[in-house]
Amino acid sequence: MYREMNVCEFVKATASSSPTPGGGAVAALVGALGVSLSQMVANLTLGKDNYKDVQDEMKSICADAEDIKKQLLVLVDKDTEAFDKFMETLKLPKDTDEQEEYRTSAMQESLKKAADIPLQIARVAYKIMDIAEIALEKGNKNAMTDAVISAIMSRSAVLSAVINVRINLKSIKDDKFVDEYEKECAELEKSIQERENKILNNLIL
Amino acid sequence: MYREMNVCEFVKATASSSPTPGGGAVAALVGALGVSLSQMVANLTLGKDNYKDVQDEMKSICADAEDIKKQLLVLVDKDTEAFDKFMETLKLPKDTDEQEEYRTSAMQESLKKAADIPLQIARVAYKIMDIAEIALEKGNKNAMTDAVISAIMSRSAVLSAVINVRINLKSIKDDKFVDEYEKECAELEKSIQERENKILNNLIL
Repeated sequence: MYREMNVCEFVKATASSSPTPGGGAVAALVGALGVSLSQMVANLTLGKDNYKDVQDEMKSICADAEDIKKQLLVLVDKDTEAFDKFMETLKLPKDTDEQEEYRTSAMQESLKKAADIPLQIARVAYKIMDIAEIALEKGNKNAMTDAVISAIMSRSAVLSAVINVRINLKSIKDDKFVDEYEKECAELEKSIQERENKILNNLIL
Repeated sequence: MYREMNVCEFVKATASSSPTPGGGAVAALVGALGVSLSQMVANLTLGKDNYKDVQDEMKSICADAEDIKKQLLVLVDKDTEAFDKFMETLKLPKDTDEQEEYRTSAMQESLKKAADIPLQIARVAYKIMDIAEIALEKGNKNAMTDAVISAIMSRSAVLSAVINVRINLKSIKDDKFVDEYEKECAELEKSIQERENKILNNLIL
């Protein structure tokens, strides 16, 4: 599993001529790193007298961040698997009409999976913004930059994952599937950009 | 060294109540992941007949990406060391005037270092954009989304590192130092946002 690799090895595997891990896996990992920064802010706020009114919220952020982090680390590998699966279907034989028909159908299925995993990454990475906003507003002021960087990583993970959904949608023939996925992508993209912009525009350092 | 940790452990260490690794280390790692995606695009272009006119450029991108990647992975740890060093100076005794004077001077020095390392991260991460632009324009079209995600990560690493420079500049008394660093931050920030915007606005999927 890629998530068990050491950091340098993961970076090296990404850079290699093998197409996996690629942008989707990187988006998921960047999300995991991003949510960890908000979780750190919450951890640096817990037990501090100056922040006694927000202890329950910080506990809640910590639990949510833990959940998001675990989901994203699993998605690092799921994205890689979905792409490898798609590459396998490309190699299916197409000598007879029956083989051709089976291959086309299998490719459509694996393309849907290859679009679905990055959409899951985008949805989960989007939730980091909720946590980052609370960490920034109510968490330990000494770590406010970490909350802002958490928000930046949420935005980048969502936008990156959305790009990977869309590139797969291009080859999917099921119009209803494509419309639904594109609609959700457009909403996630617009909202995450607005929320990150708001944080960066209001930031006074 | 944090860069030798496994991916899950690094994410866990970030989330912990220890302030390092923090946003600066994450910015450096996100940059390393981002440049690896452009390097992958170059690797997927090398040796391909359809791209024979760009082989030299792809070799050059590969070498530059390798260099940037190594620098950023070293900066992951340097950022952490700089912050730990600053925390140590905070603990210096301040019982006598002499101790107080020494402590103030040591803190200013470690703050300058804590501002300098993220500026180095921002400068190096900025160069990823040059590589991502070439990878996107001339590299293997099948991996174009990876080049775009590489550009997104360049922008996010630069903006995140700049935030960490600025938070340290706030406490630095040397006006000339502060002005120079702030000027460079403002330039990097403006330019990287414009370049990423241009790529995202022109993206047709």
